[in-house]
Amino acid sequence: MSWLDDVKWDAQGLVPAIAQEVGSNDVLMFAFMNREALECTAETGQAVYFSRSRQRLWHKGEESGHVQKVHELRLDCDHDVVLLKVEQLGHQPGIACHTGRHSCFFQRLEGGEWKSVEPVLKDPERIYK
Amino acid sequence: MSWLDDVKWDAQGLVPAIAQEVGSNDVLMFAFMNREALECTAETGQAVYFSRSRQRLWHKGEESGHVQKVHELRLDCDHDVVLLKVEQLGHQPGIACHTGRHSCFFQRLEGGEWKSVEPVLKDPERIYK
Repeated sequence: MSWLDDVKWDAQGLVPAIAQEVGSNDVLMFAFMNREALECTAETGQAVYFSRSRQRLWHKGEESGHVQKVHELRLDCDHDVVLLKVEQLGHQPGIACHTGRHSCFFQRLEGGEWKSVEPVLKDPERIYK
Repeated sequence: MSWLDDVKWDAQGLVPAIAQEVGSNDVLMFAFMNREALECTAETGQAVYFSRSRQRLWHKGEESGHVQKVHELRLDCDHDVVLLKVEQLGHQPGIACHTGRHSCFFQRLEGGEWKSVEPVLKDPERIYK
Protein backbone atom coordinates (compact mmCIF):
# COMPACT_ATOMS: atom_id res chain seq x y z
CA MET A 1 0.00 0.00 0.00
CA SER A 2 1.65 3.16 -1.22
CA TRP A 3 0.29 5.48 1.49
CA LEU A 4 2.30 3.46 4.02
CA ASP A 5 5.38 3.79 1.82
CA ASP A 6 4.90 7.57 1.82
CA VAL A 7 5.69 7.61 5.55
CA LYS A 8 9.35 8.15 6.43
CA TRP A 9 9.97 5.48 9.04
CA ASP A 10 12.96 6.05 11.34
CA ALA A 11 15.92 3.68 11.80
CA GLN A 12 13.78 1.54 14.15
CA GLY A 13 10.93 1.45 11.65
CA LEU A 14 8.84 3.81 13.78
CA VAL A 15 7.02 7.10 13.33
CA PRO A 16 5.97 9.47 16.15
CA ALA A 17 2.19 9.74 16.55
CA ILE A 18 0.22 12.49 18.27
CA ALA A 19 -3.37 11.81 19.36
CA GLN A 20 -5.63 14.86 19.40
CA GLU A 21 -9.23 14.85 20.60
CA VAL A 22 -11.89 15.65 18.03
CA GLY A 23 -13.95 18.64 19.16
CA SER A 24 -11.84 19.98 22.03
CA ASN A 25 -8.64 19.68 19.97
CA ASP A 26 -6.83 18.73 23.19
CA VAL A 27 -3.57 16.85 22.69
CA LEU A 28 -4.20 13.62 24.53
CA MET A 29 -1.01 11.60 24.17
CA PHE A 30 2.09 10.86 22.18
CA ALA A 31 3.35 7.43 21.16
CA PHE A 32 5.04 5.58 18.31
CA MET A 33 3.71 3.44 15.49
CA ASN A 34 5.38 0.91 13.27
CA ARG A 35 4.06 0.10 9.82
CA GLU A 36 1.77 -2.64 11.11
CA ALA A 37 0.35 -0.38 13.82
CA LEU A 38 -0.48 2.37 11.34
CA GLU A 39 -2.00 -0.12 8.92
CA CYS A 40 -4.11 -1.65 11.74
CA THR A 41 -5.20 1.82 12.85
CA ALA A 42 -6.41 2.71 9.37
CA GLU A 43 -8.12 -0.65 8.84
CA THR A 44 -9.88 -0.95 12.19
CA GLY A 45 -10.57 2.74 12.83
CA GLN A 46 -9.12 2.36 16.34
CA ALA A 47 -5.72 3.61 17.46
CA VAL A 48 -3.03 0.93 17.53
CA TYR A 49 0.46 1.97 18.61
CA PHE A 50 3.78 0.17 18.94
CA SER A 51 4.96 -0.19 22.53
CA ARG A 52 8.71 0.29 22.59
CA SER A 53 9.00 -1.04 26.16
CA ARG A 54 7.04 -4.21 25.37
CA GLN A 55 8.18 -4.38 21.72
CA ARG A 56 4.75 -5.30 20.47
CA LEU A 57 1.59 -3.80 19.01
CA TRP A 58 -0.46 -2.00 21.61
CA HIS A 59 -4.16 -1.62 20.92
CA LYS A 60 -4.89 1.49 22.95
CA GLY A 61 -7.50 0.60 25.56
CA GLU A 62 -6.81 -3.14 25.46
CA GLU A 63 -6.48 -3.16 29.27
CA SER A 64 -8.23 0.04 30.31
CA GLY A 65 -11.13 -0.07 27.87
CA HIS A 66 -10.15 3.49 26.92
CA VAL A 67 -10.18 2.86 23.19
CA GLN A 68 -9.62 5.66 20.68
CA LYS A 69 -11.95 5.86 17.70
CA VAL A 70 -10.02 7.43 14.85
CA HIS A 71 -11.78 10.14 12.83
CA GLU A 72 -8.82 11.31 10.76
CA LEU A 73 -5.22 10.46 10.05
CA ARG A 74 -2.84 13.26 9.09
CA LEU A 75 0.80 13.33 8.00
CA ASP A 76 3.16 16.27 8.38
CA CYS A 77 5.11 18.13 5.70
CA ASP A 78 8.23 15.99 6.19
CA HIS A 79 6.23 12.75 6.12
CA ASP A 80 7.73 11.67 9.43
CA VAL A 81 5.06 12.47 12.02
CA VAL A 82 1.46 11.24 12.18
CA LEU A 83 -1.44 13.10 13.80
CA LEU A 84 -4.57 11.16 14.78
CA LYS A 85 -7.85 12.93 15.42
CA VAL A 86 -9.63 10.66 17.86
CA GLU A 87 -12.68 10.27 20.02
CA GLN A 88 -11.55 9.03 23.42
CA LEU A 89 -14.01 6.29 24.40
CA GLY A 90 -14.66 4.29 27.60
CA HIS A 91 -15.21 7.16 30.03
CA GLN A 92 -16.95 10.50 29.98
CA PRO A 93 -14.99 12.82 29.83
CA GLY A 94 -12.34 10.88 27.95
CA ILE A 95 -9.33 9.44 29.77
CA ALA A 96 -6.25 8.96 27.61
CA CYS A 97 -3.60 8.84 30.34
CA HIS A 98 -2.68 5.81 32.43
CA THR A 99 -2.74 8.10 35.48
CA GLY A 100 -6.51 8.45 35.01
CA ARG A 101 -6.31 11.95 33.59
CA HIS A 102 -7.86 13.31 30.40
CA SER A 103 -4.50 14.03 28.76
CA CYS A 104 -0.95 12.86 29.38
CA PHE A 105 0.18 16.51 29.31
CA PHE A 106 -1.02 17.41 32.79
CA GLN A 107 2.22 18.91 34.12
CA ARG A 108 2.77 22.62 33.56
CA LEU A 109 5.99 24.55 34.15
CA GLU A 110 5.29 27.14 36.87
CA GLY A 111 8.00 29.05 38.67
CA GLY A 112 10.71 26.58 37.70
CA GLU A 113 8.74 23.46 38.62
CA TRP A 114 6.51 21.01 36.80
CA LYS A 115 3.16 21.07 38.56
CA SER A 116 0.23 18.70 38.03
CA VAL A 117 -2.64 20.94 36.98
CA GLU A 118 -5.27 18.48 35.73
CA PRO A 119 -7.53 16.30 37.88
CA VAL A 120 -7.48 12.50 38.06
CA LEU A 121 -10.87 11.51 36.62
CA LYS A 122 -10.68 7.88 37.67
CA ASP A 123 -8.35 6.07 40.07
CA PRO A 124 -5.86 3.98 38.00
CA GLU A 125 -6.44 1.10 40.43
CA ARG A 126 -10.02 1.05 39.26
CA ILE A 127 -9.01 1.38 35.59
CA TYR A 128 -6.48 -1.48 35.64
CA LYS A 129 -8.26 -3.90 37.97
CA MET B 1 17.96 23.67 37.20
CA SER B 2 15.98 20.74 38.47
CA TRP B 3 13.00 21.13 36.14
CA LEU B 4 15.36 20.39 33.22
CA ASP B 5 16.63 17.31 35.07
CA ASP B 6 13.04 16.11 35.40
CA VAL B 7 12.89 15.65 31.62
CA LYS B 8 13.87 12.20 30.36
CA TRP B 9 16.21 13.00 27.50
CA ASP B 10 16.69 10.24 24.92
CA ALA B 11 20.02 8.65 23.93
CA GLN B 12 20.77 11.67 21.70
CA GLY B 13 19.93 14.09 24.51
CA LEU B 14 16.67 15.10 22.82
CA VAL B 15 13.00 15.25 23.71
CA PRO B 16 10.10 15.38 21.22
CA ALA B 17 8.20 18.68 21.30
CA ILE B 18 4.69 19.39 20.04
CA ALA B 19 3.65 22.98 19.34
CA GLN B 20 -0.04 23.69 19.78
CA GLU B 21 -1.72 27.00 19.02
CA VAL B 22 -3.27 28.85 21.93
CA GLY B 23 -6.96 29.50 21.27
CA SER B 24 -7.60 27.21 18.30
CA ASN B 25 -5.73 24.34 19.95
CA ASP B 26 -4.48 23.37 16.48
CA VAL B 27 -1.36 21.21 16.43
CA LEU B 28 1.07 23.32 14.43
CA MET B 29 4.26 21.31 14.27
CA PHE B 30 6.49 18.70 15.82
CA ALA B 31 10.23 19.00 16.43
CA PHE B 32 12.93 18.07 18.92
CA MET B 33 14.62 19.98 21.71
CA ASN B 34 17.85 19.41 23.53
CA ARG B 35 18.45 20.70 27.03
CA GLU B 36 19.77 24.04 25.82
CA ALA B 37 16.81 24.55 23.47
CA LEU B 38 14.30 23.90 26.24
CA GLU B 39 16.16 26.18 28.62
CA CYS B 40 16.30 28.95 25.96
CA THR B 41 12.60 28.48 25.25
CA ALA B 42 11.70 28.93 28.90
CA GLU B 43 14.05 31.88 29.39
CA THR B 44 13.17 33.84 26.25
CA GLY B 45 9.49 32.91 25.97
CA GLN B 46 10.03 32.02 22.29
CA ALA B 47 10.22 28.51 20.87
CA VAL B 48 13.76 27.27 20.29
CA TYR B 49 14.19 23.77 18.89
CA PHE B 50 17.16 21.59 18.04
CA SER B 51 17.57 20.96 14.32
CA ARG B 52 18.73 17.37 13.85
CA SER B 53 19.61 17.98 10.19
CA ARG B 54 21.73 21.05 10.96
CA GLN B 55 22.80 19.83 14.44
CA ARG B 56 22.30 23.22 16.01
CA LEU B 57 19.80 25.30 17.94
CA TRP B 58 17.00 26.54 15.75
CA HIS B 59 15.17 29.64 16.89
CA LYS B 60 11.81 29.11 15.20
CA GLY B 61 11.20 32.03 12.85
CA GLU B 62 14.87 33.03 12.58
CA GLU B 63 14.57 33.02 8.77
CA SER B 64 10.83 33.27 8.18
CA GLY B 65 10.00 35.74 10.94
CA HIS B 66 7.32 33.26 12.03
CA VAL B 67 8.32 33.27 15.67
CA GLN B 68 6.35 31.36 18.29
CA LYS B 69 5.52 33.14 21.54
CA VAL B 70 5.28 30.51 24.27
CA HIS B 71 2.33 30.76 26.66
CA GLU B 72 2.79 27.45 28.45
CA LEU B 73 5.17 24.52 28.67
CA ARG B 74 3.80 21.12 29.55
CA LEU B 75 5.40 17.74 30.19
CA ASP B 76 3.73 14.37 29.77
CA CYS B 77 3.20 11.60 32.32
CA ASP B 78 6.39 9.77 31.31
CA HIS B 79 8.45 12.97 31.37
CA ASP B 80 9.68 12.33 27.85
CA VAL B 81 7.51 14.58 25.64
CA VAL B 82 7.07 18.36 25.84
CA LEU B 83 3.98 20.28 24.71
CA LEU B 84 4.26 24.00 23.97
CA LYS B 85 1.20 26.23 23.85
CA VAL B 86 2.19 28.98 21.48
CA GLU B 87 0.99 32.06 19.67
CA GLN B 88 2.17 31.83 16.05
CA LEU B 89 3.47 35.31 15.18
CA GLY B 90 4.61 37.00 11.94
CA HIS B 91 1.52 36.44 9.82
CA GLN B 92 -2.22 36.53 10.33
CA PRO B 93 -3.44 33.76 10.40
CA GLY B 94 -0.34 32.08 11.81
CA ILE B 95 2.00 30.13 9.55
CA ALA B 96 4.00 27.42 11.29
CA CYS B 97 4.92 25.30 8.26
CA HIS B 98 7.79 25.95 5.86
CA THR B 99 5.34 25.22 3.01
CA GLY B 100 3.47 28.42 3.94
CA ARG B 101 0.58 26.60 5.59
CA HIS B 102 -0.91 27.18 9.03
CA SER B 103 0.05 23.73 10.31
CA CYS B 104 2.55 21.09 9.20
CA PHE B 105 -0.22 18.48 9.40
CA PHE B 106 -1.95 19.41 6.16
CA GLN B 107 -2.08 15.96 4.56
CA ARG B 108 -5.11 13.81 5.34
CA LEU B 109 -5.53 10.13 4.53
CA GLU B 110 -8.46 9.82 2.12
CA GLY B 111 -9.25 6.69 0.13
CA GLY B 112 -5.76 5.27 0.60
CA GLU B 113 -3.91 8.46 -0.31
CA TRP B 114 -2.44 11.40 1.57
CA LYS B 115 -4.14 14.50 0.23
CA SER B 116 -3.19 18.13 0.91
CA VAL B 117 -6.30 19.65 2.45
CA GLU B 118 -5.07 22.99 3.83
CA PRO B 119 -4.33 26.13 1.82
CA VAL B 120 -0.94 27.76 1.34
CA LEU B 121 -1.31 31.12 3.11
CA LYS B 122 1.90 32.61 1.76
CA ASP B 123 4.24 31.49 -1.01
CA PRO B 124 7.41 30.00 0.58
CA GLU B 125 9.47 31.96 -1.96
CA ARG B 126 8.12 35.13 -0.38
CA ILE B 127 8.68 33.79 3.13
CA TYR B 128 12.33 32.77 2.59
CA LYS B 129 13.47 35.56 0.32
